[in-house]
Amino acid sequence: MPTPSDRGHNLLLGAGVVIGADVTFGANVVVHDDTVIGDGCFIQDGVVLGKVPSLSPRSTAKRGELEPLRLGDGCVVCTGAVVYRGTTLGRGCIIGDLASVRERCVLGESVVVGRGTCVEMETAIGDFTKIQSNCYITAYMVIEDHVFIAPNVMTTNDNFMGRTEKRFALEKGPTIRRGARVGGGSVLLPAVEIGEDAFVGAASVVTRDVPARTLVMGTPAKVVRGVPDEELLENQ
Amino acid sequence: MPTPSDRGHNLLLGAGVVIGADVTFGANVVVHDDTVIGDGCFIQDGVVLGKVPSLSPRSTAKRGELEPLRLGDGCVVCTGAVVYRGTTLGRGCIIGDLASVRERCVLGESVVVGRGTCVEMETAIGDFTKIQSNCYITAYMVIEDHVFIAPNVMTTNDNFMGRTEKRFALEKGPTIRRGARVGGGSVLLPAVEIGEDAFVGAASVVTRDVPARTLVMGTPAKVVRGVPDEELLENQ
Amino acid sequence: MPTPSDRGHNLLLGAGVVIGADVTFGANVVVHDDTVIGDGCFIQDGVVLGKVPSLSPRSTAKRGELEPLRLGDGCVVCTGAVVYRGTTLGRGCIIGDLASVRERCVLGESVVVGRGTCVEMETAIGDFTKIQSNCYITAYMVIEDHVFIAPNVMTTNDNFMGRTEKRFALEKGPTIRRGARVGGGSVLLPAVEIGEDAFVGAASVVTRDVPARTLVMGTPAKVVRGVPDEELLENQ
Repeated sequence: MPTPSDRGHNLLLGAGVVIGADVTFGANVVVHDDTVIGDGCFIQDGVVLGKVPSLSPRSTAKRGELEPLRLGDGCVVCTGAVVYRGTTLGRGCIIGDLASVRERCVLGESVVVGRGTCVEMETAIGDFTKIQSNCYITAYMVIEDHVFIAPNVMTTNDNFMGRTEKRFALEKGPTIRRGARVGGGSVLLPAVEIGEDAFVGAASVVTRDVPARTLVMGTPAKVVRGVPDEELLENQ
Repeated sequence: MPTPSDRGHNLLLGAGVVIGADVTFGANVVVHDDTVIGDGCFIQDGVVLGKVPSLSPRSTAKRGELEPLRLGDGCVVCTGAVVYRGTTLGRGCIIGDLASVRERCVLGESVVVGRGTCVEMETAIGDFTKIQSNCYITAYMVIEDHVFIAPNVMTTNDNFMGRTEKRFALEKGPTIRRGARVGGGSVLLPAVEIGEDAFVGAASVVTRDVPARTLVMGTPAKVVRGVPDEELLENQ
Repeated sequence: MPTPSDRGHNLLLGAGVVIGADVTFGANVVVHDDTVIGDGCFIQDGVVLGKVPSLSPRSTAKRGELEPLRLGDGCVVCTGAVVYRGTTLGRGCIIGDLASVRERCVLGESVVVGRGTCVEMETAIGDFTKIQSNCYITAYMVIEDHVFIAPNVMTTNDNFMGRTEKRFALEKGPTIRRGARVGGGSVLLPAVEIGEDAFVGAASVVTRDVPARTLVMGTPAKVVRGVPDEELLENQ
């Protein structure tokens, strides 16, 4: 059980928690067992770190022992956010207000997870990727470096929605390659791949793979043109 | 006013709260007056139970006395969730992180309400129904047993959006029959009925009733084919 | 640093906080420096007021000193909501459970911000406007008086999604004129204007301006007919 600490107002620290230099705690923070917090992190009011998942008896999520939650140096975890045990945040990540990051995720350096966004379990997110507010990042996704995901993007990973045995073999989240951008309110269907530096227009429904450096839009999303050179990642 | 209790860290209990055997409280939980918590429940960090609604002077929600909130045995209410007075949860329900369940809802046995999902007032949800993350379940809906609602599903109940008097008579949420499945990011228009074991493809906009055991998709959603036998509820 | 106050259970008040008459605090509220709370406000469990933004080094949001957060008389800030420094709420506003209102927003009288909704920075919202649950109101929007925004409405302000220098000049949120209504699950593209008393059907994608008193729907939204006289604001 976490016990009170005078390093913050109504701060609770679990057993084995490791706290780096110059860490700032807001009020009413709960840090569960074994969490490792790097130097210079800012953990804001009401944050919960290192939560152990409470899986439903019917959940298909992986069970078993989880590594401690580890926060790299200089991370900011904002008001009311919840970050689970078994996840690693690279240095300089920002987790927005009321956001969730589930277990077994690996976030690179300077990743931003926006306000209210949920990152489900076992998702990998590359360096400098920015996910804006209120997105839903499903389990088992791969999101590479320098990706930009606009607000309210939704992703899916299960075409069978909880029926049949074969779904377990086929469950797969989307993959988003380096430098791609996904517009606000878009929906990505299971297992689609968004190519490098591709651009998905706002409110699109992506039902098949998007080639690198192409712009798609619509329902279902169709190729419209190439991405202009001036917008390619290498030209920023 | 709730008063401090030593049954949990910074736990506040209102007047008349009844707590069963083997209940576990996380930190900073607030339990408002008269709430009844069944045996073996797990109430996680920062949860608020038994909240009395603060209705806007212009709200059309029903007023009047509310029964106490009742949680059946073995419920788990996850981090930061808010459950209102006047609602009943059956045994073994799981309410996800940062989810809300409003007043006068009745949830059956082993219902799952996903992370960040909002269930509005006076909605009934049947046994073993699973609502995933970030859904919006509007007021006055009926959702039967063994329904599966994927993440980010949105529902509506008012075609007049707050104008005219006749809207009060016509306000009606969707009905989702036993065993139906609704795909991620779909929108259900007011009063539509999703038939038994029907399947709504991801990102569909459902503007009319969906017959039992049929698969619909698109904007507006159209019938594509029947649901395969192997996916019917009776064959799981 | 905020310090404990006995005006509420585990209440923390920052330096220079001003509290009017008959203010009620729930449990575990944090009020940051200089916040001004009007008479008769109700600040519910777990609310954070006057938060200073933690901007990403790469964020394009405006920096600099922020005015104190000011709440007009009779405001209700509901469970777990977060309201930032630099914002002003008019009298009688209601901010729903788990909602966020960012810095430099100006809300008029009796504005409702629904459960889980996020209002980004520098957005102006007129008197009696009602934004329902789980909406995303982007930065730099103008929303006039008596607007009705149904649940899950999403808005966008950047066609370039973080690339090129010219985007800074072109970044612009939608404008929603007096009395307009926007249906549930709709997406508004950057810089569109929704005219006075216009009506956007549920689940529409609005890609161009909507004339006053017209009803649009679809993807992309097209004009269907005029709004019936009985539904115009002046006839309520």
